[in-house]
Amino acid sequence: MAQKPSIPKGTRDFGPVEMAKRNYIFDTIKEVYALYGFQQIETPAMETLQTLMGKYGEEGDKLLFKILNSGDYMNKVSDEDLHSLNSLKLAAKLCEKGLRYDLTVPFARYVVQHREELQLPFKRYQIQPVWRADRPQKGRYREFYQCDADVVGSDSLLNEVELMQIVDTVFTKFGVRVCIKINNRKILTGIAEVIGEAEKIVDITVAIDKLDKIGLEKVNEELRNDGISEEAIEKLQPIISLSGSNEEKLEVISQVLAGSETGLKGVEETRFILDTLKAVGLNNEIELDLTLARGLNYYTGAIFEVKALDTPMGSITGGGRYDNLTGIFGLPGLSGVGISFGADRIYDVLNALDLYPKEAVNSTQVLFINFGETETAYCLPIVGKLRQAGIRSEIFPDKAKMKKQMSYANAKNIPFVVLAGENEMAAGKVTLKNMESGEQTLVTAEKLIATVK
Amino acid sequence: MAQKPSIPKGTRDFGPVEMAKRNYIFDTIKEVYALYGFQQIETPAMETLQTLMGKYGEEGDKLLFKILNSGDYMNKVSDEDLHSLNSLKLAAKLCEKGLRYDLTVPFARYVVQHREELQLPFKRYQIQPVWRADRPQKGRYREFYQCDADVVGSDSLLNEVELMQIVDTVFTKFGVRVCIKINNRKILTGIAEVIGEAEKIVDITVAIDKLDKIGLEKVNEELRNDGISEEAIEKLQPIISLSGSNEEKLEVISQVLAGSETGLKGVEETRFILDTLKAVGLNNEIELDLTLARGLNYYTGAIFEVKALDTPMGSITGGGRYDNLTGIFGLPGLSGVGISFGADRIYDVLNALDLYPKEAVNSTQVLFINFGETETAYCLPIVGKLRQAGIRSEIFPDKAKMKKQMSYANAKNIPFVVLAGENEMAAGKVTLKNMESGEQTLVTAEKLIATVK
Repeated sequence: MAQKPSIPKGTRDFGPVEMAKRNYIFDTIKEVYALYGFQQIETPAMETLQTLMGKYGEEGDKLLFKILNSGDYMNKVSDEDLHSLNSLKLAAKLCEKGLRYDLTVPFARYVVQHREELQLPFKRYQIQPVWRADRPQKGRYREFYQCDADVVGSDSLLNEVELMQIVDTVFTKFGVRVCIKINNRKILTGIAEVIGEAEKIVDITVAIDKLDKIGLEKVNEELRNDGISEEAIEKLQPIISLSGSNEEKLEVISQVLAGSETGLKGVEETRFILDTLKAVGLNNEIELDLTLARGLNYYTGAIFEVKALDTPMGSITGGGRYDNLTGIFGLPGLSGVGISFGADRIYDVLNALDLYPKEAVNSTQVLFINFGETETAYCLPIVGKLRQAGIRSEIFPDKAKMKKQMSYANAKNIPFVVLAGENEMAAGKVTLKNMESGEQTLVTAEKLIATVK
Repeated sequence: MAQKPSIPKGTRDFGPVEMAKRNYIFDTIKEVYALYGFQQIETPAMETLQTLMGKYGEEGDKLLFKILNSGDYMNKVSDEDLHSLNSLKLAAKLCEKGLRYDLTVPFARYVVQHREELQLPFKRYQIQPVWRADRPQKGRYREFYQCDADVVGSDSLLNEVELMQIVDTVFTKFGVRVCIKINNRKILTGIAEVIGEAEKIVDITVAIDKLDKIGLEKVNEELRNDGISEEAIEKLQPIISLSGSNEEKLEVISQVLAGSETGLKGVEETRFILDTLKAVGLNNEIELDLTLARGLNYYTGAIFEVKALDTPMGSITGGGRYDNLTGIFGLPGLSGVGISFGADRIYDVLNALDLYPKEAVNSTQVLFINFGETETAYCLPIVGKLRQAGIRSEIFPDKAKMKKQMSYANAKNIPFVVLAGENEMAAGKVTLKNMESGEQTLVTAEKLIATVK
């Protein structure tokens, strides 16, 4: 017998139950995106390496899956190249294409390539897999879906407001209680300025971003190691330990940042977003968190992150505003703001809290038992009526043993089974068995439909 | 300015309108698959080359997109290999993974790998992209979606019947009139037997499969070139020119095949399928076509193909029964039968016949014009009410010129625009503009919802 086949490490098959749950997640997110006027696009799995390389840092370049050129690809590689180049540089000779690493760079490429067709602001969402040659580990895969929504071509903070409303609506639909954390890159810049370490902003934010995980003392230690002065660290203490309501925090921080124009702009932006959200009303709590940094080099304005309240899990959604998304492709001056739902983590959260609605996971509603050709001929028109009524129905295709057919119904979690033998046919009816209660009743096709619906 | 970015040849971006149309197609097919008890699965884009190689013939191996191993892949390649191997053989040293070429081989791999979890018969559907390094040309892409449904683990012809019902239901929903053509590999085998050319079955079916395209005379010429005897060709004439109703054709062919056990089995199978379909009733015509062959080496029983009646287009759906799907992966004895909808061609057919329902393609239903901060604050709660009522609504994020906002509405085909300035705010109402008729009315939020719904 041949070796049992397998799939590449870090990849997954999704069976029927997993797919039903994943579809529930994607469909819910899609529905809400559409409710806010976002439109779906899709880009190819493969992009040119020219598009992908240099966009994710040196480490990212290594993690790109590259596709071997088709045909006689060795033709393009000289003997000298073969012996003088390292694997990464040689790859550029062997490959012209790579697999999408995220949805943001393809989106930027899309916007530039199709700029003449697009009406700005362009509100797009995109739900597709991405691939990364990361070392696979628990919860980290080499193929996973991203669910992004972005608005480009609008500086308005209403976009930030609406993205927060989207987050709030999606998690309300899921029944997951979350805390939305918000911050602003300009506030972080202001803080670095007023403590006299403007040029150390990256180090500072990387360190304070870890507050949740490692605690205040270790954060300070890291700041010291980064060469931040004791004086600056001291000034930072009240800021990163700031507590109270969002209003109170904003009040304090606006005083602290009095000397920083950028910082005050960040406060003003944050205040607008929070005030407007208060006016429209959210179901979930939103909290100004001055230690939130998330991919700092990328974001230029608001930054957000979402955490589930009732189960331990990292960030399940995040995003922010970034300027100059399309500058790398030669179209400067377009600002964007976006969010990304972490589908795999949301999947785990819904599992942990047992929040999948029954109807989202159920597949077939009625199974007709197969007793042979005559009975099947009797059942087929009834099966047809059920389907016409929108009821997902099956007739077991083979005249198999009753036990086998019933275990098929059980394995597929089918709630109703229909039996029709001589007696039923004579009466022009069928026997309907409720698989949960075990109850059996003799019914007409019409009654059957009414009962199942 | 940087070079305008592009995508790899043979791949496509799908913009909002294309995506809405594609989603309509996929959603319709998914809904019908589910109605018949099929469950969705997904497999990874990457499979091991061990899984993929040798499954699609020599040509297919060349058309697989191979993924360069990550890290220091050159380590595994000796100098000797570099200089002695051709590109295809060297690829096996550089690559361990490839992109999915179709959905059938990954499905077979899936069934074998997960056999212990699966309850047979297993009815699965799968809608995912596949990749082929084909030379791109009109209507042929290097990335395209397949939409397959298969049943494995059941020999029952009821599966064939239900797949034809699925085809009939899907195209009825689309509003496309089709002809479903059906044949049986066993009938073709029988024909080759009775004309005394059993071992030439492949040549014969390849030739007669072209009858539609090249006509009878050229088919005969091809048969002659293949070395089929004049006597056999003569015997073949009445068979391939057979006309009349399905019943008449079956009657004649069962006499012709009287000497072939396999042939008669094929007739019997076809008769059962056609009789049962007649009993359940189809909306579209089904026609026994003895010249239909479709990938003969693959199919072992029923063969089907679907053509649109009202627009010229090749086959838009096809399928058939194949034995031993999973044998290549060491699990023999499992029979399967499946269909595959050609999404790209169906897309073109629906475009040509202008059959997309308006509501499938529409995105945002209402746009609120942005007149500034006060007006926006007034509008936001109303926008919220509309969304709560399930109406896809947007507020233009920036206070832009009226003309710009209106052309945004036009570009997105938004049917209703809402304006709220001083007068409206004073009256506690909004002005609703119907973009098609140009009509403007002053309404309350409740009236607005009722009108749009």
